[in-house]
Order: sequence, then structure tokens, then C-alpha cells
Amino acid sequence: MYYIGVDIGGTDVKTAIVDKKGNILAKAQCPTLAHRHFSEITKDFCLTALEALNKSGKTLDDIASIGVGIPGIADHKTGRVIFCTNLNWFDIPLKEEIQKYIDKPVYIDNDATVAGYAEYINGVSKNRHSSVFITLGTGIGSGIIINGKPWSGFHGAGSELGHAPMDFRNGIQCSCGNKGCVERYCSATAIIRMAREAMDGLDNGLMLSKCNGDLNNLTAKIVIDSAKEKDPVAVSVFDEYIENMCKMILMVICIIDPEVIVLGGGVSKAGEFLVDAINANIHKHLLFKTVAPPEILIAKLGAEAGVIGAAMLGLEER
Amino acid sequence: MYYIGVDIGGTDVKTAIVDKKGNILAKAQCPTLAHRHFSEITKDFCLTALEALNKSGKTLDDIASIGVGIPGIADHKTGRVIFCTNLNWFDIPLKEEIQKYIDKPVYIDNDATVAGYAEYINGVSKNRHSSVFITLGTGIGSGIIINGKPWSGFHGAGSELGHAPMDFRNGIQCSCGNKGCVERYCSATAIIRMAREAMDGLDNGLMLSKCNGDLNNLTAKIVIDSAKEKDPVAVSVFDEYIENMCKMILMVICIIDPEVIVLGGGVSKAGEFLVDAINANIHKHLLFKTVAPPEILIAKLGAEAGVIGAAMLGLEER
Repeated sequence: MYYIGVDIGGTDVKTAIVDKKGNILAKAQCPTLAHRHFSEITKDFCLTALEALNKSGKTLDDIASIGVGIPGIADHKTGRVIFCTNLNWFDIPLKEEIQKYIDKPVYIDNDATVAGYAEYINGVSKNRHSSVFITLGTGIGSGIIINGKPWSGFHGAGSELGHAPMDFRNGIQCSCGNKGCVERYCSATAIIRMAREAMDGLDNGLMLSKCNGDLNNLTAKIVIDSAKEKDPVAVSVFDEYIENMCKMILMVICIIDPEVIVLGGGVSKAGEFLVDAINANIHKHLLFKTVAPPEILIAKLGAEAGVIGAAMLGLEER
Repeated sequence: MYYIGVDIGGTDVKTAIVDKKGNILAKAQCPTLAHRHFSEITKDFCLTALEALNKSGKTLDDIASIGVGIPGIADHKTGRVIFCTNLNWFDIPLKEEIQKYIDKPVYIDNDATVAGYAEYINGVSKNRHSSVFITLGTGIGSGIIINGKPWSGFHGAGSELGHAPMDFRNGIQCSCGNKGCVERYCSATAIIRMAREAMDGLDNGLMLSKCNGDLNNLTAKIVIDSAKEKDPVAVSVFDEYIENMCKMILMVICIIDPEVIVLGGGVSKAGEFLVDAINANIHKHLLFKTVAPPEILIAKLGAEAGVIGAAMLGLEER
């Protein structure tokens, strides 16, 4: 059997036909046009998925199920989207709507969760005992894979590491309403904030020249590239970021203790420079100094992780 | 078949013969005398377990396995105790030593983890989808039960919620070496610290009278009892404690999102007073306001949870 995967992003919806090993047979995508009613968006991506199916040379008889990754959370029992902020979806019967066009079992989960599952099925954490996937982007998404399956909790609100409190008393205000959430300290946005603070009052330096003298052009990549080139201000920002990352990883160990932690998202493009820095610093934070910490890996499926992981949600009854 | 459960505490080792539903057939216990070599301690509790077996009217042929709860962490693959601080055990071949006396499969796990498992097998969280058990005592222990089994992580270092960082920047120093660990804010010890701080400079009041004028007599129970009696200082301490608890629970939701959270340990004796205060305050901390938080329950197995949960470790191949 084969599986339809759908990855709903703010700009595009990607669809793919995927085999049971996580290999893509064919793909198609359409613009999300996120301002529209969910029924129109759903109709469009269902037709796009059928286009991918046609390209793949398979038919609906070959399809076991359709899986959808959303930038939000879903209720697995009802197939309703509980919350999807950048699409403005609240309590949407997505499964029911999809089945008007493709009458197959529908599975819905968070986009970071399905990306982490894709890495487990056919990526860098393939067949590992347990893994926590963490996307380091504008915010922080996460996907917990245990017992070979994605874990999103009983109510669908789990695997949201970015909003776990790590600085609850005097922490930085988060857009979610709480203070001191993990993503305030470990996202790409956090690196930019820290670099801006460190550059306050400086009128020259490598980072400023890399952003053509305009701090509005500052990116996490500029900070990390400058740290690689040993710019002292960038190095101090990067060192502080690594401390933050180690505390986040300590939290993950103290609760889940997975075999591996997979880093994805923009910041993960720093690759071994990031992994080496974490590995060089994690031990001093560990609770049990003689117990190995999780292996830190960089995600490898990139933009295709979403459709692969979403498709694989139907791999077996969950 | 029946199962031997062993609960190694700092003062006593409890043993029991347990059926597959988590019912105790017979019990026996011996003093730990923790200063001794682990081989002597092990010999004593194995003989004690055999005494319990004899009392139960069963024989070794009826026993499937022996499970041990330890105040520390173990490597499930090797059966070695990695770390058990108050017994001064480091990298101890406990499984091998036990099998000199009782030649059965041996399973070892953390004492809070097995207590949480006991509540799942035959206690307040019986057969619930997923649960996180949290002991609120001198420190904080925890046990995560998912997919019907205890989860201690790949390296055995998971399910140690008490040492997850929740105040990593300017947090209170913890005995583990890190700052801002959960147990600095949510344990019985934390309540006492907060009450002492609040009572600084006060020379009268309900709490001071309940501890006969000597703050060395102050306990979490005195603080909570005084809050129940609406002593304003105690109420403000208890309110702050509930805020801390809600942040810890938010962390648990953002990662695990279990169906239920089970509270055990000394502070949990506050019962519905504690549960009601958490339920009245948790919503304002939630990331997803429309998603129900886990149900908060008070543990019911008490001192027998350790032997029951340890015994049940052998219920099926883990």
C-alpha cells in the first residue's frame, strides 16, 4: 500500500505519494492562500494530492490513508484541528472535509511532530530507540518519537517543547502569553535578540558589516558565521546560545531521555559547528555525569520531511 | 504467575509477592543498614523476599520475575545500578547479585517510576491512557507511564522531572549542582523555604505558633494547614507554591501531555485542597486555552506503591 502525505504551510501546501518505507513516488503542491475558508484550502490540496497520485501511476485503490501535518495541534480521536494559529483555524473538522474528496482514513498531527517521525522512518534517526526532533527556527517546534510512533499526548497538546517554561520567574515575555518559554532562548529569533543586545552601542564589527550596517538585516546565520570566524562579540553570543541549548537539552533528558536528539530548522544548518559546541558543553549540565547524553544529530530530510512524516502517520493504527 | 517486588529505601527494604493485577499476597521487610556493602544488603533482602514467598504459600516455580525499585537510576539493558546516591551505589551489578539468590529475570527501575506504574496497574490512574506520577517530598521524583509501561528513557536518566530546569538563569542553587531545578520550587522543601522567607522578621502568627515558636519545626504540613485556616502569610506562600506547581505542570503538558497527573509524597496529603487550587489556577498558564489540561489525581497506594510497581516491572517483556 501507499500513503498520501500533506504538509500545510503558511505559503504552500505540499502533497506526496509515499511508500511504506518513507520514499516519495510523486509530489505536487499548491499555494495555501491562507486567508481563504478552510473548505476551499482543503479542496485545493485534496485535488493537488490526487494530481500527485496520478503522477505516481497509482490509484486510490493503492492508497491506505492520508496524513496531514499542520502548524498547530489536532485531536487524534475526532480528526478536528484544535488550533492552527497562522491559518486562523480553530476547532475545524478537517478529517471530515478531506473525506469529501478522498474517502480514506485521515490522520492529522503537528508539523514538527511529523517531521520528526519522517526522520525516524527514513532519515537521520531511522529506527533509533527514541528521538526528540527539535526545529530551531523563528520559533521552536518539536516531535517526540517513542516506541516507534509519534507522541503528541493524550489531548494533542504535547510535544510543544518551545513553550515549556525554562525561566518561569523573570523570563522574557513570549507571544504565547507566558514568560520564559524555551523558544525565547533557543530559537533563531533568540540568537538575533541576543546578538542585538550584545551589539548595542557598537558601531562596527564583523556582524554589523555582514548586515551592511543595518541591524534589521541581522540573521542567525550571520551571527553563527561570524562566530565561526571568531568575531569576539559573535562568539560570546553563540556561547550563551549553546548554554541555553544545553539547558533545553537537559530538560529533554530529565523527562524523556531519548537515544537521539535531532536538530532541524534554520539554525541546524550550522551543522557540526553547532553539534560540536553542544557536545563540548553538555556534560557540565548533566544530572548524572556518568550517563551518556543523547546523541545530537542534524536532520537530513529537509523540506520533504513534512509530507513523508504526514504520510507515515497511517503506517499502522495509532 | 506471581511476581516478587522489592522497594529499597534508605531505612528499610520492603518485599512482597504480587499477583498480575497488582494485589499483594504477602509482605516482609528488613532494615537496609545502608552503610553495608551492596552484596550484604542484597543477600538480606533476597532472603526477606523468600520469606514473603513462603508466607504467600507459593513457591519459586510460581514466580515469573523479580522487580526492584531503587532511589536512583539503572541501566535496563545490563541490570546494573548506575547511581543510587543515598546508598552510595555507583555502577553496581545488582541483577547479577540478586540472581545468586533468586534465579529469575530481574528488572530494576527508579522508585518514583515504579510507584507511578503501581498507580497505573492497580491505583488511582488504573488503565488511564498515560500518566505522569510526581512525588512531592524532600525532593521531587517522577514516573512517566505511556503505552502501558513505565518510561525511563534510553539511558535510564529520564523521568527525573525534579531536576528539569525551570529557572535556568537566576534560579536557586540545587544540590545536584545545577540552578533552578523544578524541585527547588515544587517540593516540600520548597514550601518550607518559601514560608521561612515570608516569615522573616515576623515574631508571631499562626505558623510560628504551630511550630512552637521555633522555625526549625516548620513543615510543609504546617504551612498548608495554616493556609487552610486562612492565615494570610501561609495563604500567600501557598498561592506562590501553586503558581510554581502550575508552571511545572505546564512543562509536563508541553512535553508529555498525559491524560492524568498523579501527585504523591508528603505534600499530596493536602488532597483536594491542593488539587482544587491547581485546577483553579492552571488555565491561565496553558498554552492552548481550549484544550483540557490533564486531570490531577492524588495517589492512593501509599507506602505499598513501591513493591507493587517494582513487582509489575516483570509483567511483560519491556
